[in-house]
Amino acid sequence: MSDAYEQPMKTVHVELGERRYPIYIAAGLLARNDLFPAHIQGRQVMVVTNETVGPLYLEAVAERLQVYQCESLILPDGEQYKNLAELNKIFDALLTRRFARDCTLVALGGGVIGDMTGFAAACYQRGVPFIQVPTTLLAMVDSSVGGKTGINHPQGKNMIGAFHQPRAVLIDTDTLATLDDRQLRAGIAEVIKYGLIRDEAFFSWLDANIEELLGRDPAALAYAIERSCLNKAEVVAADEREGGVRALLNLGHTFGHAIEAALGYRDWLHGEAVAAGMCMAARLSRRMGWLDVETLARIEGLIKRAELPLYAPPRLGAAALREFMAVDKKVKAGQVRLVLLRSIGEALMTADYAQGQLEAVLDESLSS
Amino acid sequence: MSDAYEQPMKTVHVELGERRYPIYIAAGLLARNDLFPAHIQGRQVMVVTNETVGPLYLEAVAERLQVYQCESLILPDGEQYKNLAELNKIFDALLTRRFARDCTLVALGGGVIGDMTGFAAACYQRGVPFIQVPTTLLAMVDSSVGGKTGINHPQGKNMIGAFHQPRAVLIDTDTLATLDDRQLRAGIAEVIKYGLIRDEAFFSWLDANIEELLGRDPAALAYAIERSCLNKAEVVAADEREGGVRALLNLGHTFGHAIEAALGYRDWLHGEAVAAGMCMAARLSRRMGWLDVETLARIEGLIKRAELPLYAPPRLGAAALREFMAVDKKVKAGQVRLVLLRSIGEALMTADYAQGQLEAVLDESLSS
Repeated sequence: MSDAYEQPMKTVHVELGERRYPIYIAAGLLARNDLFPAHIQGRQVMVVTNETVGPLYLEAVAERLQVYQCESLILPDGEQYKNLAELNKIFDALLTRRFARDCTLVALGGGVIGDMTGFAAACYQRGVPFIQVPTTLLAMVDSSVGGKTGINHPQGKNMIGAFHQPRAVLIDTDTLATLDDRQLRAGIAEVIKYGLIRDEAFFSWLDANIEELLGRDPAALAYAIERSCLNKAEVVAADEREGGVRALLNLGHTFGHAIEAALGYRDWLHGEAVAAGMCMAARLSRRMGWLDVETLARIEGLIKRAELPLYAPPRLGAAALREFMAVDKKVKAGQVRLVLLRSIGEALMTADYAQGQLEAVLDESLSS
Repeated sequence: MSDAYEQPMKTVHVELGERRYPIYIAAGLLARNDLFPAHIQGRQVMVVTNETVGPLYLEAVAERLQVYQCESLILPDGEQYKNLAELNKIFDALLTRRFARDCTLVALGGGVIGDMTGFAAACYQRGVPFIQVPTTLLAMVDSSVGGKTGINHPQGKNMIGAFHQPRAVLIDTDTLATLDDRQLRAGIAEVIKYGLIRDEAFFSWLDANIEELLGRDPAALAYAIERSCLNKAEVVAADEREGGVRALLNLGHTFGHAIEAALGYRDWLHGEAVAAGMCMAARLSRRMGWLDVETLARIEGLIKRAELPLYAPPRLGAAALREFMAVDKKVKAGQVRLVLLRSIGEALMTADYAQGQLEAVLDESLSS
């Protein structure tokens, strides 16, 4: 039994006017009975989870939802299942159970479950509410916040989706206890991202505390989650639909998505691809003369200490990466725009880099 | 060659603030070079059409779009193809041609093409612009205006979709020349709907001019289209996301969707199902004492003169209809809400009807 009520709960708000919503962060939060009802209107609730997370936490969540008609759906686990066929299983389940427009969906799991459940909520009967209950570090600090939902297409990641904000995000840090080390490290990649693009002090804190995070020190994890959510919430509130500053959150993602798509969304975790992608962005920034050698070394050093990959898998080949980078959502007028770094804590979105330097980064990444 | 420039063009605006857009109505409009460019920002345009409409009008539309990278996709024709598999063909085409987020989709066809293309535009890269070029009367007067997009699910019509407004609606009334009589009549069903729910004078005009419409009198058709679009634009501007008055546009649709779903989206056209559904709604309204016998007879009389069905297909059975009505999007707290009539020109949404009277309406419809 968790001592939830003795723990102080942190609340970060995503300020989006009438679509404003809270991110609750605490150990033992899934033992509280008051949080779900505050964000559910109708009587029907569908919990969508996967084969890994379901056996661990579905019962606890269903217990909190006893007062509703609570149904659940268990999908397979993995990025390769973030597709149209699995999405359709959610629609099948909702229609088979006769779920009406006043139902609520609950996403219990990592980024894949959150993105797919959110997208199903965006489309079911042209939009129903949903609640995020992220159980991986990556989902807690990034994908569950901000309303980006969607699925992959064989030709590109997150190519089909919608902006659809959740009604609330419930982060029970106790669920990290069952997260394997590799998933934890993948989440740390996105945590490091906030430091790199807009929070130099946080980067320095991470540099000093990376071992505590890898060792699952509860206070360090709670702080990293809260600070990441604060960063994400600020950016989303300023630019919900990614017309400007929000695009900087994609540091490492154009490279990373190309790696993931080229691998068929298998073998590598999203956070691992992003880690390699951030290194590639840093190297291109160095080649453009925007970062000095020491700063590049400091970035690569932290990612290495986090036991994350610094390079794309050599077997992919530069041609495949180029191909997949060309379908990125940030392509404008035929030119791939990239998020690059001016310093630790300052990113920019630009198409104004030398093509030859990008080629060199792709080549060195693959010959490593 | 059309004498487009000699025809006066009517413009109806859908007033939605920064998402405001025009509906252009004229004969020969597809011969004009000025309308598309006013509503296209990027360089890539994908025209989505079907096997019936494509051979007739794709060339003319492509000619107007010569200055862009103009691609096209031809889907099969029919409501039974408004599904996930066909939707995915649009995503495949967009990704194969490397379409970026600044592309524009053009829906050239009837309601099925408009709904699917609009939904693809809503989801592709989380939202790209699109333009409606309706070529059926039904699409011109109803489905192309207002931003409701989506696809069917085997268990219910339009169950998966999004609100996504077009940038413009281009109605070339010349395209009605190639519309077969049955499709024309199906469109007239939705025209009659506007008279029934909110425009008594228009209903009287239709009563006096139904033979002219069926005889394709150009002036009568142009007037009916413009007046229908004006009605639709007013309702959508007042209630874009169907929180209130917009729901009245669904007169006959809960019955009609159940008929369509029970038929597997084959055999009957949407407008035909709506016509029978409006008669069923009128009969239930009569049974509740809200309509008098003469008014019911007047409504049924007009629909009969329009050569549209007054009853659901007897072979379906009341149980099947009840089953499909229960998944309607307007179900709230387990109760099916219906749009019923207080008089010609005045509709209401209510769950406050006698269940036994609804059963009687379903039974009499099927024993007719």
